[in-house]
Amino acid sequence: MAAALREPNVVVLGGGSWGTTVASICARRAPTLQWVRSEATAKDINENHRNTRYLGKDVVLSETLHATTDFSEAANAADVVVMGVPSHGFRDVLTELAAELRPWVPVVSLVKGLEQGTNMRMSQVIEEVLPGHPAGILAGPNIAREVGEGYAAAAVLAMPDSHLAAHLAQLFSTRRFRVYTTDDVIGVEMAGALKNVYAIAVGMGYSLGIGENTRALVMARSVREMSKLGEAMGGQRDTFAGLAGMGDLIVTCTSQRSRNRHVGEQLGAGKPIDEIIKSMNQVAEGVKAASVIMEFADEYGLNMPIAREVDAVINHGATVEDAYRGLTAERPGHEVHGAGF
Amino acid sequence: MAAALREPNVVVLGGGSWGTTVASICARRAPTLQWVRSEATAKDINENHRNTRYLGKDVVLSETLHATTDFSEAANAADVVVMGVPSHGFRDVLTELAAELRPWVPVVSLVKGLEQGTNMRMSQVIEEVLPGHPAGILAGPNIAREVGEGYAAAAVLAMPDSHLAAHLAQLFSTRRFRVYTTDDVIGVEMAGALKNVYAIAVGMGYSLGIGENTRALVMARSVREMSKLGEAMGGQRDTFAGLAGMGDLIVTCTSQRSRNRHVGEQLGAGKPIDEIIKSMNQVAEGVKAASVIMEFADEYGLNMPIAREVDAVINHGATVEDAYRGLTAERPGHEVHGAGF
Repeated sequence: MAAALREPNVVVLGGGSWGTTVASICARRAPTLQWVRSEATAKDINENHRNTRYLGKDVVLSETLHATTDFSEAANAADVVVMGVPSHGFRDVLTELAAELRPWVPVVSLVKGLEQGTNMRMSQVIEEVLPGHPAGILAGPNIAREVGEGYAAAAVLAMPDSHLAAHLAQLFSTRRFRVYTTDDVIGVEMAGALKNVYAIAVGMGYSLGIGENTRALVMARSVREMSKLGEAMGGQRDTFAGLAGMGDLIVTCTSQRSRNRHVGEQLGAGKPIDEIIKSMNQVAEGVKAASVIMEFADEYGLNMPIAREVDAVINHGATVEDAYRGLTAERPGHEVHGAGF
Repeated sequence: MAAALREPNVVVLGGGSWGTTVASICARRAPTLQWVRSEATAKDINENHRNTRYLGKDVVLSETLHATTDFSEAANAADVVVMGVPSHGFRDVLTELAAELRPWVPVVSLVKGLEQGTNMRMSQVIEEVLPGHPAGILAGPNIAREVGEGYAAAAVLAMPDSHLAAHLAQLFSTRRFRVYTTDDVIGVEMAGALKNVYAIAVGMGYSLGIGENTRALVMARSVREMSKLGEAMGGQRDTFAGLAGMGDLIVTCTSQRSRNRHVGEQLGAGKPIDEIIKSMNQVAEGVKAASVIMEFADEYGLNMPIAREVDAVINHGATVEDAYRGLTAERPGHEVHGAGF
């Protein structure tokens, strides 16, 4: 019989809506400390069990969740690190962490995007800055507020080792938040990075008044197109048909709250991209990702027509009507092995 | 250089909404004759280029489409047969056809369901009644009225031989109706037969007020559960992530017009299944399919929790809340290889 093991201390870095939601979940399963930059947010979490700034007043956090603004305290306590900081600050926080983090501690990213400039996945950044630390990602169709409000949801936790994934998954699981596991880190990270571009494509369609058939067509072909690139990069095809690919795409395409879908709709209404970006207070990841996908498509010698048309509208002055014509002009082939749209 | 080949005569059997829509598409590509039972419908198609009874007044059919009520005329003319008759009349029409149809003529089913009593796929029925005739299916996210109104849509044509599939696909393709191909007849037929049950599951969710995360969760896990059975029966996994699986599920789950989703919503509102069926003038396929899936699950030794819960509500007096609890009580495992929900 196994001895009773000491519970791992979970440390969540970052005070945003999703980082806080995950921290609150973990706090029900294990001692959890959340590092945030703002004193006010730390106080809000510790005293009111809320993160009013990001989650509003209605989402009540676990009472056992503690927050701190002391980075060293957090870094030293960690047996598991959850990275809830956005991609642009990700490397800096990791670098600060490197000097204090104990060896072997696994690092789980919550970021669905690539590092700007390098186009690296977050787990690659972790491997570069913290070699020897198992690096993975938790991703899926997760609107933070809905999870916070207790609606059932699910995500997939990808770690290079399946046993570690299964072990860590327990820290993130509740009855209402289901965490599946996989060893396909590349696939889950690429699904998260790619799907925003395809959500823009579907958003463009909404503005053209396309029917429900058409939407399903674009979504099904988007999953296929994502799989194609993801597989070329070393991911597994099944991942793109799962929670982080298809699942997240469904939420991103159907949710009224989706920034990427909003961008697509506005583009379809004829607004220039600069104006759309200016009018939003948060960046839609898909806007940047469109040109990155085209770089990957070149690198891997792949034809990716949906991404190509989105990129043409965002970066090369094409209209949404042009994009639509560009796609329908392509001849359909074998559903799985065909090269085009 | 190949000689100019005689165009094949396409014969569509059946006068319903989808059969008529497909016939109208084919008529733009090749001489097409539609057999219908009703004199009035034949007249409507030939003189008004409409099938008012099934498609309303707004959908205008190809002027080159001809309809007849003379079964022998249709059977003798056919170089390609498209079966637009529902599953309960499918075998009888084929049997009548057998005496007159020329050899080798391919038969393409439009039916997304199994034969009652035998649980056979339509291509199996074709192989039994018309041995030697290549048998396949055309399926996808296709709301007939939307296709008729000219919205872009797509389907997948599955034939046992990929070359034949590619050849026939041209007969069904227009600029706005994209036909992809595959040799996975079993997968496409099973996707079509299974997805209705999963649409009921999502419909039940709507009535519980589940969030968008939850809906995406149920849909992603439904695709996985369908794949599992489909693969066990000889289908290909990719098919279930494609147009006939995921694509059709998206339309069936999000469309207000979906009968199966409607059944799920009504069950969620606490109405007994008999009353729901009585109030609908068309049968929701998923109601019958639920118990059939459970027979298959037994036969192949598979755990299919979503179908199990739908079956429990429809056939064994469980409530939608019971079903939901049954699912969330299951522990998530490996996303692809896990055995449960």
